[in-house]
Amino acid sequence: MSGETRPLGVAAIGYAFMGKAHSQAWRNVGSFFDVPAFERKVLVGRDGAQVAAAAERFGWQESATDWREVIARPDIDVVDICTPGWTHAEIAIAALEAGKHVLVEKPLSNTLEESQAMVEAAARAAGRGVKSMIGFNYRRVPALAYARNLIGDGRLGEIRQVRASYLQDWLADEQTPMSWRLRRETAGSGALGDIASHAIDQVQFLTGHAVTGVSARLETFVPRRPGPDGVEDVTVDDAAWLTLALDGGAVASVEASRMAFGRKNALRIEVYGSGGALAFDLERPNELQFLDGADPVEEQGFRTILVTEPEHPYVSAWWPQGHVIGWEHTFTHQVRDFLVAIRDGGTPSPSFADGLQVQSVLDAAARSAEARGAVVDLPSASRATQEA
Amino acid sequence: MSGETRPLGVAAIGYAFMGKAHSQAWRNVGSFFDVPAFERKVLVGRDGAQVAAAAERFGWQESATDWREVIARPDIDVVDICTPGWTHAEIAIAALEAGKHVLVEKPLSNTLEESQAMVEAAARAAGRGVKSMIGFNYRRVPALAYARNLIGDGRLGEIRQVRASYLQDWLADEQTPMSWRLRRETAGSGALGDIASHAIDQVQFLTGHAVTGVSARLETFVPRRPGPDGVEDVTVDDAAWLTLALDGGAVASVEASRMAFGRKNALRIEVYGSGGALAFDLERPNELQFLDGADPVEEQGFRTILVTEPEHPYVSAWWPQGHVIGWEHTFTHQVRDFLVAIRDGGTPSPSFADGLQVQSVLDAAARSAEARGAVVDLPSASRATQEA
Amino acid sequence: MSGETRPLGVAAIGYAFMGKAHSQAWRNVGSFFDVPAFERKVLVGRDGAQVAAAAERFGWQESATDWREVIARPDIDVVDICTPGWTHAEIAIAALEAGKHVLVEKPLSNTLEESQAMVEAAARAAGRGVKSMIGFNYRRVPALAYARNLIGDGRLGEIRQVRASYLQDWLADEQTPMSWRLRRETAGSGALGDIASHAIDQVQFLTGHAVTGVSARLETFVPRRPGPDGVEDVTVDDAAWLTLALDGGAVASVEASRMAFGRKNALRIEVYGSGGALAFDLERPNELQFLDGADPVEEQGFRTILVTEPEHPYVSAWWPQGHVIGWEHTFTHQVRDFLVAIRDGGTPSPSFADGLQVQSVLDAAARSAEARGAVVDLPSASRATQEA
Amino acid sequence: MSGETRPLGVAAIGYAFMGKAHSQAWRNVGSFFDVPAFERKVLVGRDGAQVAAAAERFGWQESATDWREVIARPDIDVVDICTPGWTHAEIAIAALEAGKHVLVEKPLSNTLEESQAMVEAAARAAGRGVKSMIGFNYRRVPALAYARNLIGDGRLGEIRQVRASYLQDWLADEQTPMSWRLRRETAGSGALGDIASHAIDQVQFLTGHAVTGVSARLETFVPRRPGPDGVEDVTVDDAAWLTLALDGGAVASVEASRMAFGRKNALRIEVYGSGGALAFDLERPNELQFLDGADPVEEQGFRTILVTEPEHPYVSAWWPQGHVIGWEHTFTHQVRDFLVAIRDGGTPSPSFADGLQVQSVLDAAARSAEARGAVVDLPSASRATQEA
Repeated sequence: MSGETRPLGVAAIGYAFMGKAHSQAWRNVGSFFDVPAFERKVLVGRDGAQVAAAAERFGWQESATDWREVIARPDIDVVDICTPGWTHAEIAIAALEAGKHVLVEKPLSNTLEESQAMVEAAARAAGRGVKSMIGFNYRRVPALAYARNLIGDGRLGEIRQVRASYLQDWLADEQTPMSWRLRRETAGSGALGDIASHAIDQVQFLTGHAVTGVSARLETFVPRRPGPDGVEDVTVDDAAWLTLALDGGAVASVEASRMAFGRKNALRIEVYGSGGALAFDLERPNELQFLDGADPVEEQGFRTILVTEPEHPYVSAWWPQGHVIGWEHTFTHQVRDFLVAIRDGGTPSPSFADGLQVQSVLDAAARSAEARGAVVDLPSASRATQEA
Repeated sequence: MSGETRPLGVAAIGYAFMGKAHSQAWRNVGSFFDVPAFERKVLVGRDGAQVAAAAERFGWQESATDWREVIARPDIDVVDICTPGWTHAEIAIAALEAGKHVLVEKPLSNTLEESQAMVEAAARAAGRGVKSMIGFNYRRVPALAYARNLIGDGRLGEIRQVRASYLQDWLADEQTPMSWRLRRETAGSGALGDIASHAIDQVQFLTGHAVTGVSARLETFVPRRPGPDGVEDVTVDDAAWLTLALDGGAVASVEASRMAFGRKNALRIEVYGSGGALAFDLERPNELQFLDGADPVEEQGFRTILVTEPEHPYVSAWWPQGHVIGWEHTFTHQVRDFLVAIRDGGTPSPSFADGLQVQSVLDAAARSAEARGAVVDLPSASRATQEA
Repeated sequence: MSGETRPLGVAAIGYAFMGKAHSQAWRNVGSFFDVPAFERKVLVGRDGAQVAAAAERFGWQESATDWREVIARPDIDVVDICTPGWTHAEIAIAALEAGKHVLVEKPLSNTLEESQAMVEAAARAAGRGVKSMIGFNYRRVPALAYARNLIGDGRLGEIRQVRASYLQDWLADEQTPMSWRLRRETAGSGALGDIASHAIDQVQFLTGHAVTGVSARLETFVPRRPGPDGVEDVTVDDAAWLTLALDGGAVASVEASRMAFGRKNALRIEVYGSGGALAFDLERPNELQFLDGADPVEEQGFRTILVTEPEHPYVSAWWPQGHVIGWEHTFTHQVRDFLVAIRDGGTPSPSFADGLQVQSVLDAAARSAEARGAVVDLPSASRATQEA
Repeated sequence: MSGETRPLGVAAIGYAFMGKAHSQAWRNVGSFFDVPAFERKVLVGRDGAQVAAAAERFGWQESATDWREVIARPDIDVVDICTPGWTHAEIAIAALEAGKHVLVEKPLSNTLEESQAMVEAAARAAGRGVKSMIGFNYRRVPALAYARNLIGDGRLGEIRQVRASYLQDWLADEQTPMSWRLRRETAGSGALGDIASHAIDQVQFLTGHAVTGVSARLETFVPRRPGPDGVEDVTVDDAAWLTLALDGGAVASVEASRMAFGRKNALRIEVYGSGGALAFDLERPNELQFLDGADPVEEQGFRTILVTEPEHPYVSAWWPQGHVIGWEHTFTHQVRDFLVAIRDGGTPSPSFADGLQVQSVLDAAARSAEARGAVVDLPSASRATQEA
């Protein structure tokens, strides 16, 4: 449990891409946000020399190679899991059972079964005041948090149509080699789980409506790639197309690809309602396009709001208007919100249950794709997203 | 048959939106393009007074109310059909059998049966040197014609992914009243046939690949609207989502809507290949976005080509570079190409068969939607689009 | 004087670039706008064969080579002067004295003296009900006409700053040869008179404030170019920079260039007031950027208004929303406004006096440039622009 | 002198806006870049309690209130001056004379005399191996550093025209109160020194050409504002317009404003050469527009390069492609370059002499404005910018 008389002790597990991003968040959050005191105690990884160097570089007090020992330490109150998805369940459940607050990178896990077990562990822990959260960091892009507010305030009227895509191109080259991300046994799926998941989460986060049915297609454009031991089969999708029914009657399209030449990190979302519209592109994360249908028709147009005013979510902590922030700042906001929930006793959002729900959508998508696109219905979901 | 010693005599049927656009094309084409001599003989419509006024306004020598009489006239060589879809088959077949060259607005007709009969009539007529063409006018946007050239020249490599949408918002207001476009018996379908058809044609035109399978969803967000005799059921779709398999292995998504608040005439197309990418938006029709994958990676980016150079298709006829043209000019280009084919003996493109093929895709989409998205395969198509 | 019982007879003089654009306007205006009846009587040019071909191509009833004969004809009521600037004064004054309504392309003339004489002739003619107008056609871009309305309605508050530029690149290549446009004796000046003039007119038109002082610099980056008889000196400016004081206290910057690589016809204008801002780019003429300072700060942003709604100036005559028009349509609007003024008795705007006033600014700019930028004051001008 | 056997000891002076930004740079640089070891020893400020809190918040080991004591400390090797301009000279000269490496925020100082003394002190210190640098941080925007490389590699040919502006709007509201930035005695000048200076530095940095002559206008649109003791005169400019002659023959325009409603931090630069063009906007700092004139004309267009590839300057240290950085990262890059120069013995750039040269341009601008725009020539400058 979090200590009341000493700073929270934080351990992070994983020091690759996500570990680096989370470390940066932990290093900076206290300089900009009012959060409870904490100490960056220990960074955990499998390779002792490498994790020691990373801990030094990113400013952790110590490094360690055995996560089990770390979560057993009484001076550790918070565990931040940045390892690949197939390891999440075991670590997270153990940490929760040890009474540690747990932040876990998306995906919650690679299987519905594991995720279900994680949700149950989180529920048990919550009863003891132990917090858990999943890291859909794009909820903390100020422009998207603000977009959600606009929609929540009814500025778009009834939501009818959402057009989302997440396009990257790092696999456009046929010679890009195999990696664990391209094998089903380690990655679960390809573009679907890795990036469509973010788009699906945004669709539900922004609209406040849960997916009730999925039609999908998956495609592997480059089915064989060079591996360490010769040419190897790619066993996950390069691209995914989903059509989603939402409770309340809206329809969303989601397209994800790692083959979209020239798109680097283009999570794009357009939301159309009966009273207005919004558009966003993660390659320009400080901007939100908003069309207010309450304006006279001759004055209507998508306005480019530079989401850098103190009135915008998270922004007042940073720099004066017009001085933009970057991708990494979303992780800082995420840690801020998690720490505040630990201190103030709220329920962090998105929850493990939210993570499981997104995975249910991905699972339905995979089944629909196997059924050549026929809709797979999801069980009547409780409202997918909770108020932040 | 077209006269050799006198100007071609042209009759246009219909004087509403499309009749106005086609009339504008006929009036202007001769001033900018080298086309065979022709005379704007007669404009045909049901209401005698109105069609007379329209003929006067748009510069036709005469008006008439009986299209049968007009196509029987020996001084008429070309018939341009701008009436609603349900009337196309009867007029077009009669005109072709009377030996008149026929240009028909899209859709070819409202049913596959009628369209099949039209294709057969066109084939018979072609044997006698009589030309026919369907008006997918967006093939004549210079930026799109140029895009097709770039793809045809291999500048994008192998095409993998196409992302197309056609978004409008004229039905976003629930109080917009009923019209023939919202009743199945007169319109056939809604956004699907009206605008998704353009997007589908572009997908095939640009890539040179035909659709082989369709998964679709249709939605009517506002199911009842005020009609002349009280509230009435809307019996066509407000929006449509399609996922298309193309021969050669590419996948295309198509989204069409009349409810996308703030989008006025947004036919947007992105094409991703193994060697580059393109993007286009009909709201900025003079621009083409092109990313050339042959550039060094640090120099790559979508370049905004202002498609107003004399080197670009159709442009040299108009104004100096940077002096943009408008939506209406696509019809002028269409008439130009049709007249040139009549004079030079080529086969106008897109043909009635191309129109039928697009309708087959729409029909498959409707059937897939009824089957909750399960893919409907199309018969192995001959290549959908012919060289212009 | 214009006949009351027969259509107005129109003569156009000049059949090159501007003659083509004006001819297109005269051909189309009657099909889209409610204007008094007129006939395209005669096109005048120096080369008999060429002008005859042009008349045939653009739809004039006759051609002629002697403008004096034409303006003497009793069946001619309107004279549209599209020849180079050095010929304007003689033709326009003669036509006005012959009682013909005169529309003259910008510049009014090449010298202040000639322009002054034209203004006087116009004033005398006005007393007899004869109309005159100068063709600053960009006032008839719907987006700019609408911008003026927004400013006139006070939506930008007090205007403080205008940032205007007109950038082209047709001289960026050093090998582009000499032409009459690059010799002072025929062109008067270079980028200054040709395109900065449009920007200056817009500054005054949009804000309703006249220039009171000018600081300027002129530059000829490529001082010698290949001519028909060998290398020749360029005697006009390639580029011009102006800083303008406006009555009322605003300041405007104007930059014009024919050397701005990649800019094809980029007349760009930004207007900043105490209550909002506007931005426009002629390469996207159907769009206006508007920021409304009355919105809450967190909702403020430049909104891209697609100026294609029936509520926008001139637009209802054309096509449905989102179906954009082109550069040439500005000339159609210009002819429409001129014809309506002839019919309804209003004063066409911009007047010859407005043309002279712009030339005074250009003259002051040239003098300031000779004085190495020291401000040249303009005489207290009456308000430069009149209400349309 | 910097220690060889222990980490460099760093002191920062000032903890307001710039102190916060510099502190953030010092905290993060070591985690991303290979720099010599250093310790964040002490943060200095006038208010003991506030500076102590800031030191705690931003991660400095200690705080202090007397900068003289701090620069006398043997464990301090580097002094980073983030205080207002009027304090720079005294601190910087004292620190240099004490053998400390000095990084000073722009402006170098508020007067030419002070700046001249600083340059002399820097030259003396350099002889003893002591480094100095001025913080024109926008040179470290990856897109601008890359732009300079493109120009330096000749990709734009001969530079002819630069169009720069720096537009903000924090003074658009007439009720925004007085502050030290609006009084001449504390700020020196207004928009001119504060932001036009950045634009001028970029013009010279990007092109490699120094300003040789200046024509300028300054304007104070709101001459009186509410102050702590009632309404007060604003004694600096709200906006500035400059036309700059550059050695080599190019011309640059610079416009700076704090009144440009809707522009938040819009440093915009367009560079036109005989072989291509570039454009940049600081509100989208991760993007560079590049038009390559070597492409066939029909393929030319401004390409939007997302400057987030590992091949781009500074980027490989951060995140994968498409994961954008923010405004603050420019300060991290600045500190990185300074530390590397200390370690490797190079000459940091921009130097104090570069800062003085920019101030000479500002001074010439002020004198030209007093002379109503007449050009003020600058002494034949040695090349303004040095190789980075």
